[in-house]
Amino acid sequence: MNKLNIAVIPGDGTGPEVTAEAVKVMQAAAAKHNIEIKTTEFDLGGQRYLRTGETLSDETLTELKGYDSILLGAIGRPDIAPGILEKGVLLKARFGLDQYINLRPVKLYPGVESPIKGKGPDEIDYVVVRENTGGVYTGTGGNTLTGTANEVAVQSNVYSRFQVERCLRFAFEYARKNGKKSRGKGEHNTLALVGKTNVLTYVYGLWDRAFNEIGEAEYPDVKREYYHVDAACIYMVQCPEIFDVVVTGNMFGDIITDLGAATQGGLGIAAGGNINPEGVSMFEPIGGTAPAFTGLGQINPLAAICSGAMMLETLGESSAGEDIENAVKWATAEKFESMAAGKMGCSTSEAGDMIAEKITSG
Amino acid sequence: MNKLNIAVIPGDGTGPEVTAEAVKVMQAAAAKHNIEIKTTEFDLGGQRYLRTGETLSDETLTELKGYDSILLGAIGRPDIAPGILEKGVLLKARFGLDQYINLRPVKLYPGVESPIKGKGPDEIDYVVVRENTGGVYTGTGGNTLTGTANEVAVQSNVYSRFQVERCLRFAFEYARKNGKKSRGKGEHNTLALVGKTNVLTYVYGLWDRAFNEIGEAEYPDVKREYYHVDAACIYMVQCPEIFDVVVTGNMFGDIITDLGAATQGGLGIAAGGNINPEGVSMFEPIGGTAPAFTGLGQINPLAAICSGAMMLETLGESSAGEDIENAVKWATAEKFESMAAGKMGCSTSEAGDMIAEKITSG
Ligand SMILES: CC(C)[C@H](C(=O)O)[C@@H](O)C(=O)O
Ligand SMILES: CC(C)[C@H](C(=O)O)[C@@H](O)C(=O)O
Repeated sequence: MNKLNIAVIPGDGTGPEVTAEAVKVMQAAAAKHNIEIKTTEFDLGGQRYLRTGETLSDETLTELKGYDSILLGAIGRPDIAPGILEKGVLLKARFGLDQYINLRPVKLYPGVESPIKGKGPDEIDYVVVRENTGGVYTGTGGNTLTGTANEVAVQSNVYSRFQVERCLRFAFEYARKNGKKSRGKGEHNTLALVGKTNVLTYVYGLWDRAFNEIGEAEYPDVKREYYHVDAACIYMVQCPEIFDVVVTGNMFGDIITDLGAATQGGLGIAAGGNINPEGVSMFEPIGGTAPAFTGLGQINPLAAICSGAMMLETLGESSAGEDIENAVKWATAEKFESMAAGKMGCSTSEAGDMIAEKITSG
Repeated sequence: MNKLNIAVIPGDGTGPEVTAEAVKVMQAAAAKHNIEIKTTEFDLGGQRYLRTGETLSDETLTELKGYDSILLGAIGRPDIAPGILEKGVLLKARFGLDQYINLRPVKLYPGVESPIKGKGPDEIDYVVVRENTGGVYTGTGGNTLTGTANEVAVQSNVYSRFQVERCLRFAFEYARKNGKKSRGKGEHNTLALVGKTNVLTYVYGLWDRAFNEIGEAEYPDVKREYYHVDAACIYMVQCPEIFDVVVTGNMFGDIITDLGAATQGGLGIAAGGNINPEGVSMFEPIGGTAPAFTGLGQINPLAAICSGAMMLETLGESSAGEDIENAVKWATAEKFESMAAGKMGCSTSEAGDMIAEKITSG
């Protein structure tokens, strides 16, 4: 029996509601595949901050390193100034655990309606590899003459070749193993770099050179493409079928994955993994805390459930992960009325129950 | 008779084809409204660069300052390294002429099909005010140890309170005059700031403070909203009707206006103005050079034609501008089969003729 020690950070807003369902479903898959999952909850986020003034301490970060993986609900409160919890908890975990990859499938599940005309599960099916610990997210910069008419603010996008290379290698490996050709869906495995080489010449110049050098020398079997970020946003709407695996820097990745989530039917179903391939990873629904739905039992837990599937796959438990994936596909195709909170046709916990039972009985 | 002296930069690719139609249509409107338009062509862009090694020289920039306005087709060639023409011509003009506003209506014309389900001209009808001479577009930064394993690239987003303020004031004024309430479409004129205050705390911290201070003190009649850029991209797809006037920094503006163009039926119909409210402005279709369609007479000239309308409006010739707008609406509703190049149901010059005749006869 394989034993997994999972840290759960339910967090704020609807975070606790969705992580509860994700854990329920993961336990159902674990039982079936002879895995023992032990979960430990960590009280982090806005409530804790308001109570104690603490965000994510160095001690807790060290503790988290002792787990096999982390499941995160959502962090944030409308009554706390922007940046405090994001930098203090979410980004501190991503950076502190060196989770340098943010893996975000953009995938239209069967039965889910995309807001884009004429695009179905065959067309909306790609993966974004977002660099996750560099760029403007480093917090490099500052303000001078703050609050005066002469104030100047500087926010720097900083990338080292080391950071760019490790992200690109992960993306090339991912494309080689999971690209469209490998999945029998196309003639090539393709990796597309999304950047802005015509304006961000320093940073995306570096990305572009590394992309072509590494690709040519080490991954000649993976087809390379390049799109400016502005054009990529157009194509994600007009012709999402051109994408296979996409790699990009942190800020552009943030933007295009949210756009991708919109095209796949919304945040209710968009999962993401903050991955340290050599360390402890953290999986999270990419939606936020949804204050308007907190406590109502109406939030869609599928994104959190799919994050659980990604976690199991990343931990090497592919069959358990696939079981969850398949049960979700069954539920979206046959059981859910809509992906929107309050319109699913079932409650948050009924959704979790339904998927857990499908796994158990399937 | 009002006389206008217009510089025309046809540029590369399909640029000359679309500017020719824009000039044709502007002349038709001018004739009707007792305006005399004199155009002077400037040979700038990729062909000139390949021939002479020159981009936009300081002398030409000074010359351009003598015109009432500039019409630009498109600049760029696939066989010239990224950045050279963009920085050497387009950005040099924007910066050199201090065109600190990029005004981009996101507007679904009647008869044009949006790729977004269930959204028509009532829902897709807003304007993005993009700051146009700051941020990462300043080119601040560089590379060190270039080409080595230890290379580091830095690209800085730099904004001064001065830059932020003048852009915000333009946006507030624009919202006050042209917002939904002023157009009889809503209860408020609304200005939404799009930023990323939770991560780009220095730069969007400055924007956010200035936004609220100026708004509260000087524009209490304009409703203020704020969206993170990632969320804004979701809403532009899910619920574009929430937007009225949007203001944002240069890089985010680049991204969201291309996304906006996709939702309004593509680049064929998306116009933009690089505006210096106290100086010489430059109007351009926001699409590129479309190498695949160059010389075929199949490219859609509507974006260039609408840019001409924006120019006339900005120069105070509102009736002439409106005539063009109305003729374009008539053409999209009744004449065009599609907005896509090669699928319009007419050629580039037939499109221009049709709209010019409608203006003359209308
Ligand atoms: C909450 C915020 C800091 C975060 C980000 O920008 O990375 C979020 O938008 C995301 O994409 O996970
Ligand atoms: C060509 C490029 C430099 C330009 C920009 O990034 O501003 C273009 O994308 C635009 O939006 O006008």
